[in-house]
Amino acid sequence: MPELTRMTWREVRAAAPSAIALLPIGSQEQHAGHLPMGTDTMLAEAVVDGALERLGGEPEVVRLPALPFGHSPHHLFAAAVSLSAATLQAVLADVLDSLGRSGFSRVFVVNGHGGNDEIMRLAVKQYALKADVALAACSYWAIGEPASPGHAGLFETSLMLAAKPDLVREPGPRPDVTPPPLFDRPPYPGLTVERYGEWARVGGSTDDATAATAERGADLLDRRVAALAAAIRAFASATREHAHTEGEA
Amino acid sequence: MPELTRMTWREVRAAAPSAIALLPIGSQEQHAGHLPMGTDTMLAEAVVDGALERLGGEPEVVRLPALPFGHSPHHLFAAAVSLSAATLQAVLADVLDSLGRSGFSRVFVVNGHGGNDEIMRLAVKQYALKADVALAACSYWAIGEPASPGHAGLFETSLMLAAKPDLVREPGPRPDVTPPPLFDRPPYPGLTVERYGEWARVGGSTDDATAATAERGADLLDRRVAALAAAIRAFASATREHAHTEGEA
Amino acid sequence: MPELTRMTWREVRAAAPSAIALLPIGSQEQHAGHLPMGTDTMLAEAVVDGALERLGGEPEVVRLPALPFGHSPHHLFAAAVSLSAATLQAVLADVLDSLGRSGFSRVFVVNGHGGNDEIMRLAVKQYALKADVALAACSYWAIGEPASPGHAGLFETSLMLAAKPDLVREPGPRPDVTPPPLFDRPPYPGLTVERYGEWARVGGSTDDATAATAERGADLLDRRVAALAAAIRAFASATREHAHTEGEA
Amino acid sequence: MPELTRMTWREVRAAAPSAIALLPIGSQEQHAGHLPMGTDTMLAEAVVDGALERLGGEPEVVRLPALPFGHSPHHLFAAAVSLSAATLQAVLADVLDSLGRSGFSRVFVVNGHGGNDEIMRLAVKQYALKADVALAACSYWAIGEPASPGHAGLFETSLMLAAKPDLVREPGPRPDVTPPPLFDRPPYPGLTVERYGEWARVGGSTDDATAATAERGADLLDRRVAALAAAIRAFASATREHAHTEGEA
Amino acid sequence: MPELTRMTWREVRAAAPSAIALLPIGSQEQHAGHLPMGTDTMLAEAVVDGALERLGGEPEVVRLPALPFGHSPHHLFAAAVSLSAATLQAVLADVLDSLGRSGFSRVFVVNGHGGNDEIMRLAVKQYALKADVALAACSYWAIGEPASPGHAGLFETSLMLAAKPDLVREPGPRPDVTPPPLFDRPPYPGLTVERYGEWARVGGSTDDATAATAERGADLLDRRVAALAAAIRAFASATREHAHTEGEA
Amino acid sequence: MPELTRMTWREVRAAAPSAIALLPIGSQEQHAGHLPMGTDTMLAEAVVDGALERLGGEPEVVRLPALPFGHSPHHLFAAAVSLSAATLQAVLADVLDSLGRSGFSRVFVVNGHGGNDEIMRLAVKQYALKADVALAACSYWAIGEPASPGHAGLFETSLMLAAKPDLVREPGPRPDVTPPPLFDRPPYPGLTVERYGEWARVGGSTDDATAATAERGADLLDRRVAALAAAIRAFASATREHAHTEGEA
Repeated sequence: MPELTRMTWREVRAAAPSAIALLPIGSQEQHAGHLPMGTDTMLAEAVVDGALERLGGEPEVVRLPALPFGHSPHHLFAAAVSLSAATLQAVLADVLDSLGRSGFSRVFVVNGHGGNDEIMRLAVKQYALKADVALAACSYWAIGEPASPGHAGLFETSLMLAAKPDLVREPGPRPDVTPPPLFDRPPYPGLTVERYGEWARVGGSTDDATAATAERGADLLDRRVAALAAAIRAFASATREHAHTEGEA
Repeated sequence: MPELTRMTWREVRAAAPSAIALLPIGSQEQHAGHLPMGTDTMLAEAVVDGALERLGGEPEVVRLPALPFGHSPHHLFAAAVSLSAATLQAVLADVLDSLGRSGFSRVFVVNGHGGNDEIMRLAVKQYALKADVALAACSYWAIGEPASPGHAGLFETSLMLAAKPDLVREPGPRPDVTPPPLFDRPPYPGLTVERYGEWARVGGSTDDATAATAERGADLLDRRVAALAAAIRAFASATREHAHTEGEA
Repeated sequence: MPELTRMTWREVRAAAPSAIALLPIGSQEQHAGHLPMGTDTMLAEAVVDGALERLGGEPEVVRLPALPFGHSPHHLFAAAVSLSAATLQAVLADVLDSLGRSGFSRVFVVNGHGGNDEIMRLAVKQYALKADVALAACSYWAIGEPASPGHAGLFETSLMLAAKPDLVREPGPRPDVTPPPLFDRPPYPGLTVERYGEWARVGGSTDDATAATAERGADLLDRRVAALAAAIRAFASATREHAHTEGEA
Repeated sequence: MPELTRMTWREVRAAAPSAIALLPIGSQEQHAGHLPMGTDTMLAEAVVDGALERLGGEPEVVRLPALPFGHSPHHLFAAAVSLSAATLQAVLADVLDSLGRSGFSRVFVVNGHGGNDEIMRLAVKQYALKADVALAACSYWAIGEPASPGHAGLFETSLMLAAKPDLVREPGPRPDVTPPPLFDRPPYPGLTVERYGEWARVGGSTDDATAATAERGADLLDRRVAALAAAIRAFASATREHAHTEGEA
Repeated sequence: MPELTRMTWREVRAAAPSAIALLPIGSQEQHAGHLPMGTDTMLAEAVVDGALERLGGEPEVVRLPALPFGHSPHHLFAAAVSLSAATLQAVLADVLDSLGRSGFSRVFVVNGHGGNDEIMRLAVKQYALKADVALAACSYWAIGEPASPGHAGLFETSLMLAAKPDLVREPGPRPDVTPPPLFDRPPYPGLTVERYGEWARVGGSTDDATAATAERGADLLDRRVAALAAAIRAFASATREHAHTEGEA
Repeated sequence: MPELTRMTWREVRAAAPSAIALLPIGSQEQHAGHLPMGTDTMLAEAVVDGALERLGGEPEVVRLPALPFGHSPHHLFAAAVSLSAATLQAVLADVLDSLGRSGFSRVFVVNGHGGNDEIMRLAVKQYALKADVALAACSYWAIGEPASPGHAGLFETSLMLAAKPDLVREPGPRPDVTPPPLFDRPPYPGLTVERYGEWARVGGSTDDATAATAERGADLLDRRVAALAAAIRAFASATREHAHTEGEA
């Protein structure tokens, strides 16, 4: 699996016209009492690396190092290392612009943290207006059969039990809070609702994690990996005309 | 229906603690050869005003004038009047901040243009971190039973035939283009895909509008109006603790 | 009167080379106890629409929807919906840039709110350095025989009694304050003087409105309308060389 | 005359509560073939220093060093050293903020360059919203009996013949250009009109300078100096309540 | 070695008052034909992890994940993934601010890339003005007995042969260029000199790497590790008063 | 000595292709109880003007007016007039950009204030990436045999006694503070260390100035002048290929 960080610059430039550059983005933020700060980054990387292994080099992908920090202002009450929305927009714009200048015409961003989602989508839209490229973006839980990932609950805890079991502590029961948090179950379908102080009020997770198991996690991870591999293949195929052999570039 | 633009400032301040401030946002951009530039603004306002009429003042809503310009950089090839992403973010941040300072603790944003969607969601998230408020945001087609609105196709043309029939010209057939545009049908479920020059290449609409009728439009509009009315009621009820009588404020 | 919001994009592009794009800008801010929040926007639109009607299509003007929000930080104490100076600069820069890209080479901005004045003038200066265009800008009270509009006093109240009589409440007498506000009567001719907290201290208006009448307002409005019509004609004539027939564009 | 640059910080802090801080701002830009780049800065300083001498220390003024660079984008075709509008706004905001933190509650800005005018007025308005201060701003030609200063024409050349005779070269006749420039004589009273490339087209000056004399300049300078002295006195008197003895501060 | 990414948020908050937060920053940029893109990041991490191991937990350090991207605009000609100066400033400001909010009062930044140096120093200066913290910053080659690291030459190649031997390709001889590059040997001691297009002109490295050996690299690495360990100890001791036990915080 | 402020624009443009533009930058900030606010600006100008006199016109230099304000946020507690880092970056970027547009291909910045150092170096690096120019930057104490200038201590006081004796008051003894300030003597060589509130705590100077004499100052000044003259000559010679006769430009 070609990793940009291990390649020389000539290898990168040689790969750029035909390869897809893939950027994982994550976060460092609270994940309740039982999951580590880097959970979102680790899971994005686990899904990405699984998918790339499954693809076996076809299509050709150059994987960038993950951006370990994300947009987590709602978790600053609890030790997050957070980039502001403007900063994350600037980082993504600069990275996409750099890749375009290096000769890449196809870029794929895989996100592991809900708070990055809108910013990532905006970033690929912006860059597609500036340069003659094709870009894809997804949050790893939302492709194929989309999952509701929650935060530090059953979904993420199961995945971490499969991907990084030594970093998972025993989850405690999730406290009941009244009124229930709005980000979790919006009061009407399709509505985004935000309320001040919600995360601190509910103790940092969206749902109970005590039923999480490594088996469930392995199954979830396998489906995510398969979906991402399929999505990369589909993107490669739909944007074939954006790949060039070096001679044409 | 209390409209902020027609109220005196003392009326606004008196209403602010208990009322919901509602801001429609739209765009001025190409809508193929048969719909007017202001389509998105007009439809957002039609749905908003229909819902407010249906609610009959319960819950109390103060309606702001619609922002007539949106984020339409992908339509600048065709006479859009577009705000950059940074500018629209700044406008929404300033408007929300103003409303907070005026004493509103509940704000509802209704969007009529796809390109505004991420920016609107970011804006309400940002503001919910700054002030002790509750905010809701939706694109009018995405609430209740969500619709795929397309652009200048069957959905919007039908709605305009119901809402503003005198502004609809005869739609021509939509040209076939190869390869098909990616924004329309992403190559894998859940993937956002952007490609340079896509809108110019496909001629400005996502699907054929020739089957649009005023009847279909009236039905669609009625469902949207009902859904928004229900969503406002649900938001009001779920955030009741954020409403204050003036004495408490 | 061609309104951009009602035109299709092809109609806009066809008109752009020879027409003047006209943008009204206003505000939503306190106007004492008797005038509505949208006073400045309504008056800018009343003068603009009166002038366009009087011109009868010669010269050709494409009227944009009014920007309903302006720069009113000095009225945030009283329920204004205000854009910061930087935000309003960005909005105007984006709108002018969009119009230039759409093919307009002549733009005319008409302002209804004192706080927008410097920002509007800066915006047209900036854009005239970027693109081969001619731009005009004015506050509606300052053209022809310039008036001192005050704020929520005799001038604006009379105009509103003529333009929107149903929205005018009974004005109370203006409180005497000591020392008198500096924005009103600068201590030396030609000096701009600003003092912290001045608007809150004086109760929100610059002069007494109790003598306002609809007759006086109708006369003022008629003169403003005539002056703006003459100014548009003069601008069109002085910048004739910037108008192109579509063939030349 | 107390100059901030020559005072120790304790002297500055001791003066701040009761003194007026005075900031001259200028430019470095083309002034046709006969006047130096620094004309605007030199004239602002000449008027300021003349007025301060005439005032003889009453009211107390702390003079800052002049900002030698201004906003001159329209003269970049001809060797200007120009700050962008955003940069000049930031400089003025930072300087005003610094003065406020140093204990000054009254600030007076004197401008020597037309292109700085709106930005200076915006800056004092912004700062008066942030801190409990009183601020005045003027362009030196616009106070008292206002003059139309033109650019590198009769007015400025006469003043320079009085203030810096050794730096004035022989002015050539001003070329006739058709159509006449719009910034000079707007086509309708009260209209700001800007046209692309105007300054380069007219050769850099607004009117003929050949009739300029040192006598006329000495008279103009004397009237400007008297007006500024009177304006400072009037501002000091109108804002007396913002001056504090050190004990109160 | 406590790594933030593997800790729960409660562990981070418990450590914050007394521990030093340590952030490595690197780059992804050309390193001639024989070193990988991630060289600077890898070397910063190698020195940091060596030093932390040597310190054995005294003083207590919480290590953040390395920022894998840096400010490399001068290498964009050769496939760098670069953040602009403004973006890197924003990232560092946000990370430092997050750490301060999490309760850290001591932060140490270790840099692996010359282009980040000024920005890193600015960032710690800025943050020390905002919050009651103590901060240290260094480029790993500049502490203790400072080395001139060059770029992709003898120094870095030797270090990489010791730290990541499998990623080092055979270096070719460095081309002679006339005139010699200025960044390398400034024409006068103490002068920073920059010339357009210099890096592309000289082929991407500052000096010949063919004499590099793993032995030399191991010795250099050992000295860097020892120096950083000593620097961390010295910083901890000099800022002891900024460490708090949790009870005091 | 050609000073930009005294030249006409045609003289500037004629000189630009072959001359070096030289910009001094300083500050207005506390210098303990005995030196004036403008010390850094005055010393930068004294060294620059001495060096230009010594060079006698060879190489050709166009001297700009000094920027009298610098980045002094750490002295805002004591009456500094400070530009933020972002503002100073913008000012330098705009000035360098203006000079490039005027035809200069060689620029030399001489700094008199420690707090400007990183920002100045960043600015020349940024501009060398944008335009085909060569730039030099130095702080006047750091060239040739570098000195540790301290702040308001022996070095600066001696220089001021030589350059501006009438502005130097009697220095008092420097107070002992415990712990000693970190900016002064970093706890480990090569480490930048910043601590909140340090300057206010130590009373505004880095070392005792009571031993300063005019003789020592004259000697220091002479060496600085000689070093800067040599540095300018060396830069001119090393960048000869960037100088153009007007015909080539």
